[in-house]
Amino acid sequence: MMITVDEHRARILAAVAVTPVETVALADAAGRVLADDVVSRWPVPLFDNSGMDGYAVRAADAAEGAVLRVIADVPAGSSLDPTIGVGEAARIMTGAPVPSDADAVIPLEHTDLGTTITTEPPSRITVTTAPAHGAHIRRTGGDSPAGAVAVAAGTVLGPWQLSSIASAGYTEIPVHRAPRVAVISTGSELIDPAGTPRRGEIPESNSVLLAAAAAAAGADLVTVTTVADDEAALSSLLDGIDADAVILSGGASVGAFDVVKAVLDRTGSIEFGPVRMQPGKPQGFGADEAGRLFFCLPGNPVSVAVSFETFVRPALLAMAGRTVIDRPRVHRTAATSWRCPPGRAQFLPVLLDETTVRPATAGGSGSHLVTSLAVAQALAVIPADTEQVVEGDIVEVMVLS
Amino acid sequence: MMITVDEHRARILAAVAVTPVETVALADAAGRVLADDVVSRWPVPLFDNSGMDGYAVRAADAAEGAVLRVIADVPAGSSLDPTIGVGEAARIMTGAPVPSDADAVIPLEHTDLGTTITTEPPSRITVTTAPAHGAHIRRTGGDSPAGAVAVAAGTVLGPWQLSSIASAGYTEIPVHRAPRVAVISTGSELIDPAGTPRRGEIPESNSVLLAAAAAAAGADLVTVTTVADDEAALSSLLDGIDADAVILSGGASVGAFDVVKAVLDRTGSIEFGPVRMQPGKPQGFGADEAGRLFFCLPGNPVSVAVSFETFVRPALLAMAGRTVIDRPRVHRTAATSWRCPPGRAQFLPVLLDETTVRPATAGGSGSHLVTSLAVAQALAVIPADTEQVVEGDIVEVMVLS
Repeated sequence: MMITVDEHRARILAAVAVTPVETVALADAAGRVLADDVVSRWPVPLFDNSGMDGYAVRAADAAEGAVLRVIADVPAGSSLDPTIGVGEAARIMTGAPVPSDADAVIPLEHTDLGTTITTEPPSRITVTTAPAHGAHIRRTGGDSPAGAVAVAAGTVLGPWQLSSIASAGYTEIPVHRAPRVAVISTGSELIDPAGTPRRGEIPESNSVLLAAAAAAAGADLVTVTTVADDEAALSSLLDGIDADAVILSGGASVGAFDVVKAVLDRTGSIEFGPVRMQPGKPQGFGADEAGRLFFCLPGNPVSVAVSFETFVRPALLAMAGRTVIDRPRVHRTAATSWRCPPGRAQFLPVLLDETTVRPATAGGSGSHLVTSLAVAQALAVIPADTEQVVEGDIVEVMVLS
Repeated sequence: MMITVDEHRARILAAVAVTPVETVALADAAGRVLADDVVSRWPVPLFDNSGMDGYAVRAADAAEGAVLRVIADVPAGSSLDPTIGVGEAARIMTGAPVPSDADAVIPLEHTDLGTTITTEPPSRITVTTAPAHGAHIRRTGGDSPAGAVAVAAGTVLGPWQLSSIASAGYTEIPVHRAPRVAVISTGSELIDPAGTPRRGEIPESNSVLLAAAAAAAGADLVTVTTVADDEAALSSLLDGIDADAVILSGGASVGAFDVVKAVLDRTGSIEFGPVRMQPGKPQGFGADEAGRLFFCLPGNPVSVAVSFETFVRPALLAMAGRTVIDRPRVHRTAATSWRCPPGRAQFLPVLLDETTVRPATAGGSGSHLVTSLAVAQALAVIPADTEQVVEGDIVEVMVLS
């Protein structure tokens, strides 16, 4: 009995468990999902500091034309807190702590000496533009107070979030572990692509696709390999794999030599059956007693690509703790007409421009048209009840990059 | 003299050289740019093969109701080419080579035995639906001929392109080397974020931002480190770095302790000067005699984030051989009003929804507002001649993910 794409996807997502939490260095946390709120260890900024290179002054002393004696020099990183008396100033650099006695910073260019910097500070300056009270002082906690949530649990960590966590006072953080994924291509017909195929043999291309796609989805690849149509060999291979998910391609349809189905059927909880889609109709999914999820995909490269995007990628992202698990979708106008399989959702590699969409090959939509993958930018997603896309129709498109 | 963002960017891109070509395994080629056309070593498909699990027949013998004797079994990967005589058929699996004597494949479900598969093929079948001549045979070269360009030079290699290259018969390909990048935070005020700052000290957060951002742009990180405001230390550090690009943050403004400027000014070809933007005004850029590009960014985290997106990322992508080097930009309606710096382009961390844009912090647009980075999804890009964004204005936004 055929099930719909949504039904198969729902069954998969219902089986997904979020990976355990581990503590990692910030440098290793890009792309991970934060498992707990990060609260700032201190106020941001940490102390009143200068927003400009200039002179820290008492604003009351710094009217236009006033001459101030420069009695100290406060570089960034300085721990100095020089006393500033009446008619005095301290040279100060951007980010340096504003002396406790000062209540304004005059930028270099608002003095008679301009922006030229000397190694030693000048002995005195003349104010050319008077500062407002508090000018160019970035106040302690002005950005956020100590204890504020700097980055919230559930956030996907990109460069900016990692920076915010460092600023909040941490070098290690709790994140969900990357899903450990095994990729296995099955088929006695598969040879190394650099080899010379005999009759009936074909170059193995699915493992590189699935490995690269899983890695791009944040997975940690534990195994990438190919196995012949041999139940003992596959069974032994699977026994040695410690993974959260095993992605197999090939051998999951109704063919007589379908060792994947034969081996995995024994576990009982893995179901094989057709899904109302083209390509990608023969699918298998389930978990074994160890909790490993098995994604059993068809063997054709385009079927593999579509199955990964439709079922595997959302599952891997959900395992990693993400809540946004779907590619963005846009709408485009069909630049040409094409036929769709009756009663099955169509996932067609396509080319896009700003307004239109067209099939990535003129030749058709067959699952064997691997050349369409080389140029496709997206997958058109045509509902199962559509029998034909007509030029000018609005088409939904899953954008891949 | 202030230059515009476009002028600074043009100067950088003019100095960029595309990295040399190296040969890498497909498994290591994700994200790289292909340096030469990949031409298929063979036609695709390689041989006439079955598009279905079923029976290879002579179409003329296979009228509805015909009984055919099954004289062979052709699994995927088989090198068999059984002779098929009058009234005979061979069981065949998807992808297996179609016997030379056959001119059509009957799917399992178009016979009396249905889709149940037995280990041994049945001795005879009755045809329930006659096949058309050529039915379910995927013809040699039907996708593309031998010698056809499978993936063109200049293509950015994603999972699908890698699959196409494997299908074309290659396990290694020429690609542009990943740019080797050093990231150096400068400043005596910087401490390890897990430490306890004394007066004037701040947690170092720029290196993790720049390292993660450069890695996400495809760079190979050769050094990620922090150095104090010490000319000898910086000079010695730089001497030991073999990189295509060195990204420094801090110490590039007019401050008296700006060691980056002091050290790099000696090389002569590195220019420092203000750029008409906020944040990110103090910038330095140039190449040394060894051809290393130096990006000298301001020290504030938001300035670093903006400078990377505006100048460094496009340069790194161009170095890697990419032609699309800019983030996508979209337009949104301002959900609130905010002020912009006169005469300088504004790059403001923002939050987006489907139709609107708003600043990522309510507090302002200062370059020190690192908390805005934690939640921002994009940068609003406001032209230099705009003094204020008014609620309802259409705003251009650089989308980051």
